[in-house]
Amino acid sequence: MSTFTVPRGLAGVVVTDTGLGDVRGTEGFYHYREYSAVDLAEHRSFEEVAHLLVEGHLPDRAELTACRERIGTARVAPAALTEVLPVLVRGARSPLTALRTTWSWLGGHLDLPPGYDSTPQERADQALRLAALAPTVLAAAHRLAAGLDPVPADPGLGHTADYLRMVTGRDPDEEDVRALERYLVLTIDHGFSASTFTARTVASTGADPAAALVAALGSFSGPLHGGAPSRALEALDEIGSPDRARAWVREQVAAGRRVMGFGHAVYRTRDPRSETLKRIAARRGGPLAELAVRVEEEVERALAELKPGRELHANVEYYAGVVMEQVGLPRSMFTPTFCVARAFGWVAHVLEQALDPKIIRPAARYVGPPAPQPLP
Amino acid sequence: MSTFTVPRGLAGVVVTDTGLGDVRGTEGFYHYREYSAVDLAEHRSFEEVAHLLVEGHLPDRAELTACRERIGTARVAPAALTEVLPVLVRGARSPLTALRTTWSWLGGHLDLPPGYDSTPQERADQALRLAALAPTVLAAAHRLAAGLDPVPADPGLGHTADYLRMVTGRDPDEEDVRALERYLVLTIDHGFSASTFTARTVASTGADPAAALVAALGSFSGPLHGGAPSRALEALDEIGSPDRARAWVREQVAAGRRVMGFGHAVYRTRDPRSETLKRIAARRGGPLAELAVRVEEEVERALAELKPGRELHANVEYYAGVVMEQVGLPRSMFTPTFCVARAFGWVAHVLEQALDPKIIRPAARYVGPPAPQPLP
Repeated sequence: MSTFTVPRGLAGVVVTDTGLGDVRGTEGFYHYREYSAVDLAEHRSFEEVAHLLVEGHLPDRAELTACRERIGTARVAPAALTEVLPVLVRGARSPLTALRTTWSWLGGHLDLPPGYDSTPQERADQALRLAALAPTVLAAAHRLAAGLDPVPADPGLGHTADYLRMVTGRDPDEEDVRALERYLVLTIDHGFSASTFTARTVASTGADPAAALVAALGSFSGPLHGGAPSRALEALDEIGSPDRARAWVREQVAAGRRVMGFGHAVYRTRDPRSETLKRIAARRGGPLAELAVRVEEEVERALAELKPGRELHANVEYYAGVVMEQVGLPRSMFTPTFCVARAFGWVAHVLEQALDPKIIRPAARYVGPPAPQPLP
Repeated sequence: MSTFTVPRGLAGVVVTDTGLGDVRGTEGFYHYREYSAVDLAEHRSFEEVAHLLVEGHLPDRAELTACRERIGTARVAPAALTEVLPVLVRGARSPLTALRTTWSWLGGHLDLPPGYDSTPQERADQALRLAALAPTVLAAAHRLAAGLDPVPADPGLGHTADYLRMVTGRDPDEEDVRALERYLVLTIDHGFSASTFTARTVASTGADPAAALVAALGSFSGPLHGGAPSRALEALDEIGSPDRARAWVREQVAAGRRVMGFGHAVYRTRDPRSETLKRIAARRGGPLAELAVRVEEEVERALAELKPGRELHANVEYYAGVVMEQVGLPRSMFTPTFCVARAFGWVAHVLEQALDPKIIRPAARYVGPPAPQPLP
């Protein structure tokens, strides 16, 4: 077989076609299907955008009602799961490893014919049930770890509101829900991240969506994947107040240290997610939002003066952390919250990949001593 | 970013270097490190070959003793696992989904600093503990599903003998152990399968070995991955006796139907694993081995006559099924047995990948309608 030599890590290597969307790094623009993700975040609900990604079009009124019902019903843990959930999540290192175990358990129990014997409808049912359960499982893992009773899902609420309620145990403020919902819409998908690629690789073997989602969570847990919005907040905590921002930032930049929450692998300009989240954070206001804006200004100013040509902008983590803190999510739930949204992006990718009968299987180059050597 | 267009499914695209081995399809040869895999299967124990792959060299006497002790100790389920195992595996669709859930649960509980903060030694410890537990968990899942009590591991036995004992509940025959051990050595690794690639992709994000092994099991469960040795036996059952082989085979071949257990994606000549397993099966003898040899002859003869130029040889599944039936493994445990071996191959790949700080993240090509369109 002839071999193709490509950049390390497959950077820029096109592995598949997709109708789900794209990220245009040089333009600072990304889209879901044919719509701007930022426009969708400002004007549409989480359920509408999940429907858009999975079904390929924005729902009409009847479709939206059906979609909300479907996700709402699936969000309620089945009795068999409620029974075993404390065992599955007890002592887990994080809500995300608890979700991985629970998804795997569910995948072993949900009825689905193996691989290509299943219909697209059956695969979609399994995948959506798992994605819809993410907030329920993550919130339960959080509460059990804190010694609190899990709050059961309310199928009549929107996905975002119910998630916030299940984590905090309180009926959430409407403004909080809308702010968080914008964040969830902004993060439901974002091009070909390592977890998305992992999900598609597993789906390409004909494995069921559960196998693909469980694998995606594995890549998602890797520190190189990104997506840890709590890290940026730790820097803001350290600074404490706007009047200390300038000195702190200049010290970091002068020392060549990385300021968490700045810079992105793809965007060479402002991150459109960050811009939108900044607007959302500013609408809510308060000292944290003010501090964050001030620190961002100082970082940009310090870079312009001390490292000309080295442009770094706030990435999605930076204002995401601010928004999640504003709506009352504990920091240990910042990355799990990201996953509540991204689960639906993985679902859309897995279902798209499953329609392609070609397995994803690249090659490796052997670089050891010549073989065979005689056995000693 | 410039993009590279390569064959669909990344066929032949070199994604990484490896010192672990290679498959030379046109020669019908494959190797682990610098040694022929077939030579290793004939002359070395499973533990020796696992050590070779993971540590890079065949163990000396002291290293082998330490390796057997390490794997044997790790094969014993910790008390916390024994307690939850019935819940984790109860009602699972197969022992392999039960293993996936259990590995995920263990990964959430085993102490390991996240990602690149962990040392190679810590990663190896976690990975080897999980791989060593595979026979224990798979056998327990099998027995619990059959209404039998699990058999606890005996750390003093070899890995193969203890696995066979934990599945069947009997002290195994020495000849059975040696036959099964040869099979396990032959399947511990085999180039860049989809599951191996999945494991390495997850490891490339800095995720821990548990995340990578859980993901590998996902790809392994896909029907396109291959590795279902029970399918070939079903054809032999249908034929029933050697005198019916000729007519049955000619009917299949004339009708253009695929005969299960024949043909392979990489080997263009005889599969060296199949050749070796055929010898092992013939040594044990018995009616099933005789029937298998006869059917193989008839398939090759029928193809030569009816489809000249269409050469298909018995693949690893064909005689693997015969050997596993000979040693008394139930058919539902054929694919799980494959996994008992391959788990160590995944471990070696995951640990090798973790030394490379480059994330594996290819690209997708957007093929939907032009974006952005205005929101309706």
